Amino acid sequence: MNTFGKNIRLTTFGESHGPAIGGIIDGFPSGLKIDFESLYKEIEKRRPGTSSLVTTRNEIDRPEFLSGITEEGVTLGTPIGFIIRNSDNRSKDYSENAGKYRPNHADYTYDLKYGLRDYRGGGRASARETANWVVAGALAFQWLKEKGIEIEVELTGVGKINYSQKILEELSQNTISKLEISADAKAKIYEEIAKARESGDSVGGIVTCLIRGVPAGLGDPVFDKLHSSLAAAMMSINAAKGFEYGLGFSAADRKGSETLDIFIVKNDKVETQTNYSGGIQGGITNGMPIFFNVAFKPTPTIFKEVETINSDFESTSLKMKGRHDPCVAVRGAAVVKAMAALVIADFTV
Amino acid sequence: MNTFGKNIRLTTFGESHGPAIGGIIDGFPSGLKIDFESLYKEIEKRRPGTSSLVTTRNEIDRPEFLSGITEEGVTLGTPIGFIIRNSDNRSKDYSENAGKYRPNHADYTYDLKYGLRDYRGGGRASARETANWVVAGALAFQWLKEKGIEIEVELTGVGKINYSQKILEELSQNTISKLEISADAKAKIYEEIAKARESGDSVGGIVTCLIRGVPAGLGDPVFDKLHSSLAAAMMSINAAKGFEYGLGFSAADRKGSETLDIFIVKNDKVETQTNYSGGIQGGITNGMPIFFNVAFKPTPTIFKEVETINSDFESTSLKMKGRHDPCVAVRGAAVVKAMAALVIADFTV
Amino acid sequence: MNTFGKNIRLTTFGESHGPAIGGIIDGFPSGLKIDFESLYKEIEKRRPGTSSLVTTRNEIDRPEFLSGITEEGVTLGTPIGFIIRNSDNRSKDYSENAGKYRPNHADYTYDLKYGLRDYRGGGRASARETANWVVAGALAFQWLKEKGIEIEVELTGVGKINYSQKILEELSQNTISKLEISADAKAKIYEEIAKARESGDSVGGIVTCLIRGVPAGLGDPVFDKLHSSLAAAMMSINAAKGFEYGLGFSAADRKGSETLDIFIVKNDKVETQTNYSGGIQGGITNGMPIFFNVAFKPTPTIFKEVETINSDFESTSLKMKGRHDPCVAVRGAAVVKAMAALVIADFTV
Amino acid sequence: MNTFGKNIRLTTFGESHGPAIGGIIDGFPSGLKIDFESLYKEIEKRRPGTSSLVTTRNEIDRPEFLSGITEEGVTLGTPIGFIIRNSDNRSKDYSENAGKYRPNHADYTYDLKYGLRDYRGGGRASARETANWVVAGALAFQWLKEKGIEIEVELTGVGKINYSQKILEELSQNTISKLEISADAKAKIYEEIAKARESGDSVGGIVTCLIRGVPAGLGDPVFDKLHSSLAAAMMSINAAKGFEYGLGFSAADRKGSETLDIFIVKNDKVETQTNYSGGIQGGITNGMPIFFNVAFKPTPTIFKEVETINSDFESTSLKMKGRHDPCVAVRGAAVVKAMAALVIADFTV
Repeated sequence: MNTFGKNIRLTTFGESHGPAIGGIIDGFPSGLKIDFESLYKEIEKRRPGTSSLVTTRNEIDRPEFLSGITEEGVTLGTPIGFIIRNSDNRSKDYSENAGKYRPNHADYTYDLKYGLRDYRGGGRASARETANWVVAGALAFQWLKEKGIEIEVELTGVGKINYSQKILEELSQNTISKLEISADAKAKIYEEIAKARESGDSVGGIVTCLIRGVPAGLGDPVFDKLHSSLAAAMMSINAAKGFEYGLGFSAADRKGSETLDIFIVKNDKVETQTNYSGGIQGGITNGMPIFFNVAFKPTPTIFKEVETINSDFESTSLKMKGRHDPCVAVRGAAVVKAMAALVIADFTV
Repeated sequence: MNTFGKNIRLTTFGESHGPAIGGIIDGFPSGLKIDFESLYKEIEKRRPGTSSLVTTRNEIDRPEFLSGITEEGVTLGTPIGFIIRNSDNRSKDYSENAGKYRPNHADYTYDLKYGLRDYRGGGRASARETANWVVAGALAFQWLKEKGIEIEVELTGVGKINYSQKILEELSQNTISKLEISADAKAKIYEEIAKARESGDSVGGIVTCLIRGVPAGLGDPVFDKLHSSLAAAMMSINAAKGFEYGLGFSAADRKGSETLDIFIVKNDKVETQTNYSGGIQGGITNGMPIFFNVAFKPTPTIFKEVETINSDFESTSLKMKGRHDPCVAVRGAAVVKAMAALVIADFTV
Repeated sequence: MNTFGKNIRLTTFGESHGPAIGGIIDGFPSGLKIDFESLYKEIEKRRPGTSSLVTTRNEIDRPEFLSGITEEGVTLGTPIGFIIRNSDNRSKDYSENAGKYRPNHADYTYDLKYGLRDYRGGGRASARETANWVVAGALAFQWLKEKGIEIEVELTGVGKINYSQKILEELSQNTISKLEISADAKAKIYEEIAKARESGDSVGGIVTCLIRGVPAGLGDPVFDKLHSSLAAAMMSINAAKGFEYGLGFSAADRKGSETLDIFIVKNDKVETQTNYSGGIQGGITNGMPIFFNVAFKPTPTIFKEVETINSDFESTSLKMKGRHDPCVAVRGAAVVKAMAALVIADFTV
Repeated sequence: MNTFGKNIRLTTFGESHGPAIGGIIDGFPSGLKIDFESLYKEIEKRRPGTSSLVTTRNEIDRPEFLSGITEEGVTLGTPIGFIIRNSDNRSKDYSENAGKYRPNHADYTYDLKYGLRDYRGGGRASARETANWVVAGALAFQWLKEKGIEIEVELTGVGKINYSQKILEELSQNTISKLEISADAKAKIYEEIAKARESGDSVGGIVTCLIRGVPAGLGDPVFDKLHSSLAAAMMSINAAKGFEYGLGFSAADRKGSETLDIFIVKNDKVETQTNYSGGIQGGITNGMPIFFNVAFKPTPTIFKEVETINSDFESTSLKMKGRHDPCVAVRGAAVVKAMAALVIADFTV
């Protein structure tokens, strides 16, 4: 199954080394005037090898839209088909390791499942697939924004530098209304990534997401709890290992009396004094901000010789090559935002 | 949508105060001889107000099976319909608080969504619904057991007493093969619950789940990653606030070089030296044990007077009544096991 | 898959010889006050062995509703669970023919598919299943009626007595606005059935359905064309062999110039002078009445000795026993109405 | 919803006047070596303006495959993405009739549903969409062929010239094993089409389909009866007005004793002497050939001045332009074959 969502459904295709990847967004509402520049910026954030200095003049990975929008870029309500061409020159670095299973990669499990795999890349397991998600997510995000719903993401922890619990606590206490970490904290996080890069190693990280302006009443009380759908979406992202919303894992440490969100009426609107619930009660939004953390593991592509086996089950060793990505959570943030937008739009439409 | 699963689909119905709850299990394989005694035991574990001392002679909450099994209790491959009658005498304690929104409960959001709610209970948001899940999960578990797949659950943390990270680490290191905590640890956990009970308060907890004997190759590389489905299932459980598998959140703290699961061949079978991946790579099982943690918040039903509002948005106060459940994670463990069984069976069938 | 519908989903269970059949109606709108007497009448129409003289005092096959409705019989918007108990004494007539494949029945194909079959009845292939459909359909019908949508069904052909094409033509010409056949025609039809009954034989028939008051705009232009969903629903009914809507098969005989429905504006409302399109254009309703025919084969249960084989693939002969139903289309009409109501409600909700 | 199928799912996109149409085939089995020449031939058969004399050298409407197949054209088991570019020069003929509703077209209902429509073409309601279906259907057909399943289609009736009932009868009697009509019959059919073309009119038609080599046991006994899925697929085709399988509508005329398919054992294989059931009993295939008829209406695009209204609900008149297609059933046959292949493959995989 390569389809995500119920009302707005993203179906995707594409191997990392085929001619193109792409998707169909079915059920997307009509009447949205797409802001392409903003869309391209989201794509840049996800793209490997970019940094905050890279401008969007770089036209790599720009989707071609084939249907579902007018010539003026307004959505029609019909399925939006799009493709993203793959560049040709990506298969050189891989031949040496053909047939060797990279540890923690999907090589072995993918082989086992499909029988057939292209050693040049991860096939459907490649993170390149998430470029499709970011295209669809950016449209969902733009549509939500028009409805007053905002989604922010922030890298709040890398390795031993971890502000994610502090931020969850502040959001639970309603003491901050935007997702931001200090310049100092940011510097420490980027220093941690720089250290990993220099040592040819990688490091894990945590992405925090805050969704504001969500109307009360989204989500269902049984299987389709809003946070259940968010969890499934986040855990679909390559390298994600954990999800927590509201107080999250720290809720396990506490007493009931310490975690009650007392209802108050403010300007004729129901709010809660605190927001330990993370904006969702009984699976349904209560109108307060939604927030959650996603934990990313360090990428297993590191520049060290490692023992492994090959597809003949013989012992061998391997030195991974290719692009180095010291902390996948950096780019993961763009995918978290895209998937959050798709989930919220799916329940809002 | 009150349906869970793709190949084995559980569709459920039932309000906590109607005549009955129940469900239809569609797609369940034929030929399983149901062990009803074992099924009843699982139901007991989930039932509120029971403890390890209660025997299964208590016939409360026993499902009546209406189809899909022969007179001898063998599954036919056709949909299995079952109902569980509700007892009549449960609505007394609620009238006093009619119209008041209990903090952290689904009262407010449910009202907002449906317009119509029965103040005597949580409607579909009630945890009674999970009795249906345990019935279906117990059948799935029995079917998996015949295929050599075992599922264990354990309460590994309550309040400040928390062994869940230690156990995740041991499972990651492949140093333990069963999920067990020491008698001493267990005693400390139950002491923590006892304290909460005595003070009329509640406390959160963490349930760890270990799944052994899973064949390699289950799960899909894109949206239907096995751990994504597990996350959605676990986060559907009432009071669940977080999910992590393999190294989980602690993966964010580590370096790539510290988390590589080196492939080895042992008795002609591919294994990994360590199991930081938690048995799943690229969304697909690699044959190693799967393990994960689920965080439960403390139940908001506590015996303290709390401020709140009523359905006319007026300030009021409320003293919650009804059954007291000092740590929902105790019963949550049975639901974690049931949902894990349903997910794994869904991918195995 | 035992689920029908997308927005309103009926999931059913039940073997003809188990303790009960039943279903869950998920997604049904809240606020409908159920008219139980009217519901029971629909059930009677479907029930074998009844005739127009039988009153609804007969309480056989009355569903027990277990959830989704208030004590006053108002739908809650939550899943409606219901069961219909099977009577015990139905298995006597079958033992003699155990293991023999009745021609044109599902015995052989069901055996082949499931391996396991109860010779006493058709399992899931039994027409008893349609009692579930009639319960759900009756609720859908009542809900539609409140929205001004009416569904009529009529037996318009039996054996050589066939008014179905004449009626399709009249409906196409907009010359009749109700579905009725003359007393004389009705008499001839019932005479044909009587003849079949007397000779221990059976005879096929055609049911015409007319749906009035449907708003324009229902249905989708690609796969979910409204008439495609109607066709699937009707062809799900046991013994159905054909479906045609609007001009139906006779459209194949005609010229384009003879079949144009000219648009006119009448009281500020768009109508068409004729209705060759049967109320659906490009898969989407245009506000004109919808009408269609369903062809039913004669039931293969006849009181004649027939050659066949048994489950050991040996030649044998068989004299079928059990209830005799000379023309299944009589009862089929109630099922056509129920399924039409479910389809239209599914697209309307 | 722009998705068709359960196991093999075709999701499509594309407006007739956008840059391209296309689709994603998800769940298609791995290992099929695609015969592109054969695929192109199927596309030609569906393409308007072609005749049997046109060779496949014409490269119009050739799909570009973007994923899911190796460079050698072997399917990988991953989603197959493909696009078909639209030619640019098709919008000239339409401007004169902008805002006028063509009778029997989807113009009015589509406007009503979407608010937004491109007067140059039918948007998603355009029959151009079926080019996507033929691409997917051709792959399904090739895969089925390797499994020994053959699908034949034939235009068996046009206007007053109608052999479809005769052929249904012969197939029911098992007296023919291939679907063929005499050269004389064919000539008469083509003469009827020629007459329609000359008079600037159009004419309806009937396509018969025969599927041989289908294993017994496909289909489900309740909602997913095989013929129910076939009916839905056929009635999705533009201009389809009726579907009948086996004896079809003529079953309504007959007695049970005249329609029994007596089981026999031939070369250790169960067969039936006659095949009134059309290869499906209780919704499940019995191994005998499947056959059915699809009725197509005459296209409403005719070269005559007709009265109509415009989008301001004012009376006006209209002379339709564009390509003339005297009998859509000619091309419809290719779509019937494609959709039959998709349905059978969906149940076989």
